[in-house]
Formats: sequence, C-alpha cells, structure tokens
Amino acid sequence: MEIREVTGGVCAAKGFKAAGVHAGFRKGDRKDMAMVFTGTPANAAGVFTTNVVEAAPVTYDREAVKKSKIQAVVVNSGVANACTGAEGLNICKKSAKKTAEVLGIPEESVILGSTGVIGPQINFDILSHGIDILAPALGNDAKSAGDAAASIITTDTHSKEVAVEFELGGKTCHMGAMAKGSGMIHPHMCTMLCYVCTDAAISHDMLQKALSSVVVDTFNMISVDGDMSTNDSLIVLANGEAGNAEITEEGNDYEVFKNALNYICEKLAKMLAGDGEGATALFEVKVINADTKENARTLAKSVICSNLTKAAIFGHDANWGRILCALGYSGVKFDPAKVDLYIESDYGKQLIFTNGNEKEHSEEEASRILSAKEVTAIADMGSGIESATAWGCDLTYDYVKINADYRS
Amino acid sequence: MEIREVTGGVCAAKGFKAAGVHAGFRKGDRKDMAMVFTGTPANAAGVFTTNVVEAAPVTYDREAVKKSKIQAVVVNSGVANACTGAEGLNICKKSAKKTAEVLGIPEESVILGSTGVIGPQINFDILSHGIDILAPALGNDAKSAGDAAASIITTDTHSKEVAVEFELGGKTCHMGAMAKGSGMIHPHMCTMLCYVCTDAAISHDMLQKALSSVVVDTFNMISVDGDMSTNDSLIVLANGEAGNAEITEEGNDYEVFKNALNYICEKLAKMLAGDGEGATALFEVKVINADTKENARTLAKSVICSNLTKAAIFGHDANWGRILCALGYSGVKFDPAKVDLYIESDYGKQLIFTNGNEKEHSEEEASRILSAKEVTAIADMGSGIESATAWGCDLTYDYVKINADYRS
Repeated sequence: MEIREVTGGVCAAKGFKAAGVHAGFRKGDRKDMAMVFTGTPANAAGVFTTNVVEAAPVTYDREAVKKSKIQAVVVNSGVANACTGAEGLNICKKSAKKTAEVLGIPEESVILGSTGVIGPQINFDILSHGIDILAPALGNDAKSAGDAAASIITTDTHSKEVAVEFELGGKTCHMGAMAKGSGMIHPHMCTMLCYVCTDAAISHDMLQKALSSVVVDTFNMISVDGDMSTNDSLIVLANGEAGNAEITEEGNDYEVFKNALNYICEKLAKMLAGDGEGATALFEVKVINADTKENARTLAKSVICSNLTKAAIFGHDANWGRILCALGYSGVKFDPAKVDLYIESDYGKQLIFTNGNEKEHSEEEASRILSAKEVTAIADMGSGIESATAWGCDLTYDYVKINADYRS
Repeated sequence: MEIREVTGGVCAAKGFKAAGVHAGFRKGDRKDMAMVFTGTPANAAGVFTTNVVEAAPVTYDREAVKKSKIQAVVVNSGVANACTGAEGLNICKKSAKKTAEVLGIPEESVILGSTGVIGPQINFDILSHGIDILAPALGNDAKSAGDAAASIITTDTHSKEVAVEFELGGKTCHMGAMAKGSGMIHPHMCTMLCYVCTDAAISHDMLQKALSSVVVDTFNMISVDGDMSTNDSLIVLANGEAGNAEITEEGNDYEVFKNALNYICEKLAKMLAGDGEGATALFEVKVINADTKENARTLAKSVICSNLTKAAIFGHDANWGRILCALGYSGVKFDPAKVDLYIESDYGKQLIFTNGNEKEHSEEEASRILSAKEVTAIADMGSGIESATAWGCDLTYDYVKINADYRS
C-alpha cells in the first residue's frame, strides 16, 4: 500500500506527454496554453462545477468523458470561455476538431479546459495557433510537464504538480497531476482545474467511482473565498500502460488506487488553499469527535469560510470567539460547553477554549503559533468519534488588491 | 398610510426616555452603556440570532419578551458576554435586578443587550456602575436618544437612528429606533442590535407577527461579511401611549403599523450595510422577474455575499461575470440566456449582459457609475414576476485591517 512521491508531474505516468506554450491570450510571452496527450486511449472520469452558469468547456467535457476514451486535453488560461453562449460551445467543437486533425486522433477523444476572465468571447485563431505549436512541442519529461503546469495558472503564485508511484499486482504504476486555482475556490464542487494522469488500468466506472469518492474529503474541503467558479473541472485519465490487471470491481487493488488518488488530490487541494489569492498562510481546520462525518465536514468548512476568522489568522490573533461563532452558525447543533478549541503549528500547540469558557493562555505564545506558514485550528466537539479536515487561507490586503482590479 | 420621518430617535415615541454614558468598558471616555425606559409597561417582540453559540443576553431576552411587558433596556458595548458560560447568564440576572431596584420597576420588565469581543467574562461592577449613572441621566429629548445610540456602536463609523410618525384611527403615533452593527452581519438572523420604540397600541402577538414578517425583507436581506453573530437582537417595544385602539388582529391598522415598522427596519438595514466594516459604498442588488419570491431573495443574497463581486465593486470594476457566477452558485436553477444584468447609480444606468452574452458598453462609463456611494446591480431573471432586494457593501483593505487586529 506504500505510496512514494516521484517527479515528473503529468508526465510521470507511462505514455503521457505534455507541453506548454505562449499562444497569445496572456500579455508578454507568458505561457497560456497546455496540452496533455496519451497515445493509448485512456478511460476518463470527471467532476465538474455545480454552478448553474457553467463554462462552455465544462458543458463539452461533461459529455465527452462519459462517451469516449480520451487521448488529448487542451487547456488555455487568460479567458474562461464562460457566458459566451452558443458561439463559445461551437469554439470548443472547432478546437477539438483542430486538435484531432493535428494529432491524428478521433475528435471525440479530445477534451478542453479554460480559465481566466468570465465573459469575453474566446478567440479561436489564438486557440488554433496554440494547438499548432503545442503538438510538436509534446515531450514526456519533467520539463514538458512543468511547462504544461505553468501554462494553466492565473493568479496562482506558483504552478502545482505532484506525482506518485505505487504497486498493483506486482506492477509499478504511476499517477501524476497538475492543478491551478487561487480565487473562486469553494467547497461543493471541484474548485479549480486539475488533470490527473495515470498508467494504471481501471475501468471507466471504477475510475469515476474512485474520483467521486476522493473529491469529497479533498477538493470539496477547501475554500479560498466562498465563490464557486463557472469552470471548475477535475479530470482523471487512466491509459492502462502499467500493465496491471484492469480494476473492474471493489477490492484491494481498488483501495490501493483510491489511496494514491486521494494522496494526489489532498496534496493538490492543500497547495491550492495555501496559495489562495493574497494568502500568507495555509489555514487548516480539524474537527474531531463530532457526532457524524457530515456534521464534522460542515463544521470544518464553516470555519475556513469565515471572513472574520480568516482576517484574524492574517493578524496572528487567536480570536477563538470567531471560530466558535463560525461553528455555531454552520447549521450543526452542538453544545458549546463540550467543545475544546486548540491552535497548533510547527511552533507549538495551545488549548484556548474549554468547558464553555476561555482557557487562560499566553496571547504572545498564541500569536507566535499563528505566525507559522501553516496553522491549524482543532475543534474537539466532544460528542462522537467522527472527524473531518478542511483547508483554506487567511484573508489579506492582497486578496482585496488582486480582486479589486483583476482585469487590468 | 403616509409615513413621515421625524427626529428624536428612540425618544420620538411618547413616554420613552433614553441615556448613554461612559461606564468603563471602552477606552478613554467613549460612551459604552445605554438605557431605554418607558414608564408605561410595553408589549415586546423580538427576533434573535440563530447561531447555536448565543450570547447570554440573547438567552435572557428571548424568554423575557415572551413572559412579561418590558419597561427598560440596558445595553453595553465593548464586551459581548458571549461564550461566558453560566456566570455570563447569572450576570444578566444580577443586572436586571440592579436595574429594577434603581428604576423602581419589576425585575422581569428589564432586558439586556451586549456587543463587542466574544469570550472575556463581563465585569458586573462596571455594569452596576453604569446602571447607577444611567438612571439619573434619562431624558426624553433627541440628545438623550443620540447619546444612547452612540453608546451601542463598536466599529460602526457613525450611530444609526431613525424615527417616523403615522396615523392610526386619527391618533398620531410615533416609532423611533437605534441600531448598531458593522461586522458579523449576515442574512438569516437579525444581524445586529436594534431597538425600536413605539407609542402605538398593539397586542404582544400582533407585534411579534409584524416584526417576524418585516424582518424577512429588511434585516435578513443584508450581509457585510457572511459571519452570523452570537449576539444579534432586534427588539420592538410598544407602550400604547398614543391612545389608538389596540391592534389585536389583521386589518387596516395592522397594515399601517407594519408599513411603519418596515420603513424603520429597511432604513436601518441599509444604514448598517452601507456602514459595513471598511466599506466605501452601499451595494444594493435587485433581483426582478424571478419565478418565486424565495428564489429572488436567494439570488440577491448570493450576489451581496460574493467576496469577488464585493472586491470588484471596491475597484469600480463592472465585472458582470462575477455577478452572474454568484447567481449561478446560489442553488437556484435558471437559464443564463434569459438574464439581463444592469448596473445603476446616481451617475447612470447600463445594460451589461443580455442574451447569454456581454452587452457592448463603455468600461469607462461603467466605472463611473460604480464610483458612486450607493451602487445597484439589477438582475432581470426573465422567468417570472417576483422580486427581492438585498444590501451589502464592498470588500476593502480596511475590512481586512479592522478584522486582522480587532482586539488590540
């Protein structure tokens, strides 16, 4: 069951190639288009935004991953292709057709992703040019994967990649991924663009089942700003090149695969939360000893979504009243007198609230604990055995700065 | 049915006196305790926070307004008396007893309110001292009402009062109110401290009915930061001194009374939203032509709660994509292609989205419209005849500044 981190991003798994280029959507020579390609058609699964206003590529991919094996993903940053009407969707079809021609693969094996400003019509000439220069740039090394990862970010301060290897029936399998996402990140959807590529062999149905299961406690447990995007897509491609016996039912192999997928998704989810727009710290909230799993999740998410708590974290202020308050309005019933609240980081751990009252503690020490790059609030609900963890970030001047003038 | 604004705040209605003093909770000589008194016992109604973690005075008042007529309200700012356990509630009882003794009224006719930092135990000696100096300071003029209103604010930049007169059966009635609230303001609770005093005669049950009805489209339609406080209380006192025939059932008089109460509550709700922590503008969202009233409310509230939209308003950026996106994740189903979006202020009105696409418009003109002190976004859903309005504010550097270091 061992999972080992390796390098290589989306190219870590056998048979996957990637590229990232500047096509012309972004200013200067900033990379703005990525392509991922597998010669062996891959089973695909996806989780998408639940926003009623969904971007054209979301509408397109939602159907595509159900109907066909997938060989290529084309993603652009700079323009979201959202709220672009029938023409936006038509451009998705034209882009898939163009990609299919250039790569010599079936049109239905191409999926698309976009991220950036909502509204403006996406320019097909730039997309087409990007596809033309991406295809010959495809490589199966870490640099190619890195170029792809760098091409899909927007206000992210760094690109996000992770890759692991694990064993299935004596065969070494690989799973690599890239993600982007910094603002418009909120629970109850997959919260960003993320592409996971694995050479493990797994059926379409089991792949979708694993993904839908893993997303609940990973990407659905992060929030940067409570705004759910129109474009969020999490897609997994499995091309089977590792040569393991295809996973077609639950069992040990399925669990191993799901653990690897969970590792990848949790790691990327935390990276996204910690790199939230303007963030100076990753803010983790652990709810333990809750009565039900669902209540634990709801309580944890309520705290990471609280603007007041997030601003207090930015100020290194152990304002436990705001944490308790956010637990209180989550909709979950509980007895405040049974709750213990702790703060924790690499700099130490402190109990700050117990028995319905503040626990005497050093404010100075609390402030020092909260000055770490990753800080955790722990709420022991004292009413059961279920737990959940959510991830967010602090609310800073820079969040406001970035979003008061995103388009200029 | 005419409603005329008058001066006098909580002292506008016959028989009500008020005072505001510095008792010692706040720094310097800032006023921090208020008292409202009526010689004629008043029917009382209340709406309170739905937060599981409720402050001691909320627990106390919730029962008090059900059981007894009310003659006095004592409010402090600086400390919330929330998360203070059994001792916090005990101090409420002691404060009511002390007030009753000083004023010569029944203990059960006193209610209490607190606002400020959550957590620290409230100091009874300061409360007791405050009650001692408040009683002799009671006056029935505008200055006394103003002192009371000034004593209950915290991070508010100004105190909030409004008063009206109206006719019931040939008798002139008055209704005056004061409110506070700047942060921790969010729909689905009454969002602040607000005390409304009227000399109209109305039964306890009809008073509660009118209040519960009016709150839905006024205080429950504002949000500053999505954080629901532990202390929110909206209380109406009706002492009947105007001499009208007591309202005991629905009918014309009830409607007139409800209109007056709605006027007061809407006006104060907008004042609270516009004075949100760090706000530079009141942000109004009107949803029109929705399929149901409830959906109209949900859609409007989703937009005023969107951090991304609020930051865009601060930047005077007509980023309609964020507005449409927030409508989209509200949970209400609709067809984006049927939606028309407008922005409007004293500086003009612009259609910015229609037929599923951006409507060509001048960005410069849009930015000018959004630079007003009160800006409105109008979403015409094109799917019915119902409408709702919600009020919030922009998200600014100062919101973060205020909340990153509230306690120091």
